[in-house]
Amino acid sequence: MELKTLVTEIARKSKEVSPKIARAETKIKNDVLFNVASLIEENAEKIKEENRKDLIAGEEKGLSKPLLDRLELTDKRIATMIDGLKQVAALPDPVGEITKTWRRPNGLIVNKMRIPLGVIGIIYESRPNVTIDAASLTFKSGNAVILRGGSEAINSNRIMGELFQKGIEKSGLPPEIVQVIPVTDREAIKVMLQQDEYIDLIIPRGGEGLIRFVTENSRIPVLKHYKGVCHVYVDNEADLDMAVKIAYNAKVQRPAVCNAMETLLVHKDIAEKFLPMIDELYQKAGVEIRGCEITRKILPRAKEVIEEDYYAEFLDLILAVKVVKDIDEAIQHIEKYGSSHTESIITENYQKAGKFLREVNSSTVLVNASTRWSDGYELGLGAEIGINTTRLHSYGPMGLEALTVEKFVILGNGQIRE
Amino acid sequence: MELKTLVTEIARKSKEVSPKIARAETKIKNDVLFNVASLIEENAEKIKEENRKDLIAGEEKGLSKPLLDRLELTDKRIATMIDGLKQVAALPDPVGEITKTWRRPNGLIVNKMRIPLGVIGIIYESRPNVTIDAASLTFKSGNAVILRGGSEAINSNRIMGELFQKGIEKSGLPPEIVQVIPVTDREAIKVMLQQDEYIDLIIPRGGEGLIRFVTENSRIPVLKHYKGVCHVYVDNEADLDMAVKIAYNAKVQRPAVCNAMETLLVHKDIAEKFLPMIDELYQKAGVEIRGCEITRKILPRAKEVIEEDYYAEFLDLILAVKVVKDIDEAIQHIEKYGSSHTESIITENYQKAGKFLREVNSSTVLVNASTRWSDGYELGLGAEIGINTTRLHSYGPMGLEALTVEKFVILGNGQIRE
Repeated sequence: MELKTLVTEIARKSKEVSPKIARAETKIKNDVLFNVASLIEENAEKIKEENRKDLIAGEEKGLSKPLLDRLELTDKRIATMIDGLKQVAALPDPVGEITKTWRRPNGLIVNKMRIPLGVIGIIYESRPNVTIDAASLTFKSGNAVILRGGSEAINSNRIMGELFQKGIEKSGLPPEIVQVIPVTDREAIKVMLQQDEYIDLIIPRGGEGLIRFVTENSRIPVLKHYKGVCHVYVDNEADLDMAVKIAYNAKVQRPAVCNAMETLLVHKDIAEKFLPMIDELYQKAGVEIRGCEITRKILPRAKEVIEEDYYAEFLDLILAVKVVKDIDEAIQHIEKYGSSHTESIITENYQKAGKFLREVNSSTVLVNASTRWSDGYELGLGAEIGINTTRLHSYGPMGLEALTVEKFVILGNGQIRE
Repeated sequence: MELKTLVTEIARKSKEVSPKIARAETKIKNDVLFNVASLIEENAEKIKEENRKDLIAGEEKGLSKPLLDRLELTDKRIATMIDGLKQVAALPDPVGEITKTWRRPNGLIVNKMRIPLGVIGIIYESRPNVTIDAASLTFKSGNAVILRGGSEAINSNRIMGELFQKGIEKSGLPPEIVQVIPVTDREAIKVMLQQDEYIDLIIPRGGEGLIRFVTENSRIPVLKHYKGVCHVYVDNEADLDMAVKIAYNAKVQRPAVCNAMETLLVHKDIAEKFLPMIDELYQKAGVEIRGCEITRKILPRAKEVIEEDYYAEFLDLILAVKVVKDIDEAIQHIEKYGSSHTESIITENYQKAGKFLREVNSSTVLVNASTRWSDGYELGLGAEIGINTTRLHSYGPMGLEALTVEKFVILGNGQIRE
């Protein structure tokens, strides 16, 4: 079939079946998630076989070692997927929740009720486990989903799509509620992004290049974050031992993720004391420092920072460090160079904590805690479908509720307008 | 200045000043709204003078009588604008509201706090009073705004933009928080819709043509409704006197607005009794009926309905009528032909009311009440910036809260991730 027809037909079908999953009872939805968990368990060997095809093709294409690693479905990763399905089944169903109720003077009772968004398109890169994670979250929240994974994971994604569909069919719902785009052509993404008649929302997950490609080509609303340039500001009234612990954790614990710190801002009055304290640990961990002039005076090993470093998401053991004269300069720096992802202030001062939390309008702001907490699961959302730094719909880490919207449900007894 | 440079500069400036209004205290924002109210009162004659220029130009261009009427700023309309400003000042400020708080097992306290969206672009047609209404709502909710009204109202919009800016300056905030695009060239809208670096959200208000133009040309998220094809379904277990009252009100009270009923669905078992009851009133009011076969048997005066009529927003005293065999057929009809705006069921049956409210996922669903209630002000939102039938962000009538988003605010005491 021609590519455009194929993708359009997938989208049309998705819209067609979306009311079926929107109305499905929680018990049926949970049954499906358990069905899929069993099917994955039973078919683990077959999944690994398909995955092996991807790995061999990847090696032939000369994919890098980390990319091949991300692509691989080990027994442990398969077990994690199965656990994930069961965890999502255990989460409360957001659909049908009444979030607010009020009564009007004329007796009308106005409610806001959560309903699914409809059809969601997820576009992602090499990790094939995203297929099951994303499908389970969209499914539980009552949405139909169209999944388009990385071309290098096509065989793995296809088999998991098939297993999910089998799990759906077992409970009597239409399998097209979850569809994997079965072709690797990049043009398929472009066609998908034009289906605004059928698809309600696009969530891209991956590197900045993919996200920009999706945003620039989409006629459908896109929730995304380009990158995480996260900041920690250590105030002159900080508990410096706590500041060391947090600044170390935010940079070193897992440097390759979006909520790791990329720039450390330090108040001038404590810089001379604090920077050597933290640098002792950073040096041991192999963190490269790119510092401003004052930083370099205090830490002679630091390289010279250039302006681009302040915009950079290093995703590595590299840190930009700037000494600032006060909290206002710190906030201005974040406003100029930040990516609206996550920022933390370390201070014992009540006023300054409040000022920072109020004035910094990134999607997550913290006081006296690591930026690494900015994560749907860690914050208690039960799961995370992505992080959104677009100020629309659901800002920051997105869980199941972010895949719903609220309709007005109004109970009357004959009210008319005069 | 070149058009593109002019509009881009307006957008850039808007983004630049947006943190100032985002952080402004409620009292200052209310002061500004009162300043503007006084300035409009003091400058009423000047406003009418500028408005006269628009009216004369409109007559010369041969604008229709209803269009000229919408364009005119009468003393009454000016008084309504002034009242509107004071009413918005009296509304609670959504910014800074903590909507949820929970505690994590590790002691982190997670809050969700409302913040402004940033920069909002409003694109509208001939009514110049929208300039003040939209500016006051975006201002109160802490957003910067770029207003682009109809070209035929350019002089009226410009003077009101200037007065709003004066009112802002009086309280020491930057006037560019509210900007009116001062040129009438339609190309200006296209340039505006490309400023996704600076503008966070576009709300278009007007006819379907304008909305489609905006949606097709925008790189910025758009919240909108194309049209309101609203339905009333009269069930066989309805209180027929109530059904008559509501079906009459929904069609006749103000037929030219988006929440007026366009199609009446009637259960077959009561059609023979109900249709003549309501038609007696419809006939007196001059309502044209376009009915299905059964309807025409019962009401010989009815014209034959064609499929396009079911998709139509008549905005006039015309009504499509269809007799259905049960609630499921009614729901399917709404799903196929509806516009996700507003639908009402008239029934005394508890199960069927619940089914309709649950299964119909239009932005507003009612039981035993007129579709005309679907309005931000009437539902108690205090005001309405528009109605959104896109299942994203804020579904249905949008008040001040719809102009905000929630950030995560996290209070810690040293928590790090292991």
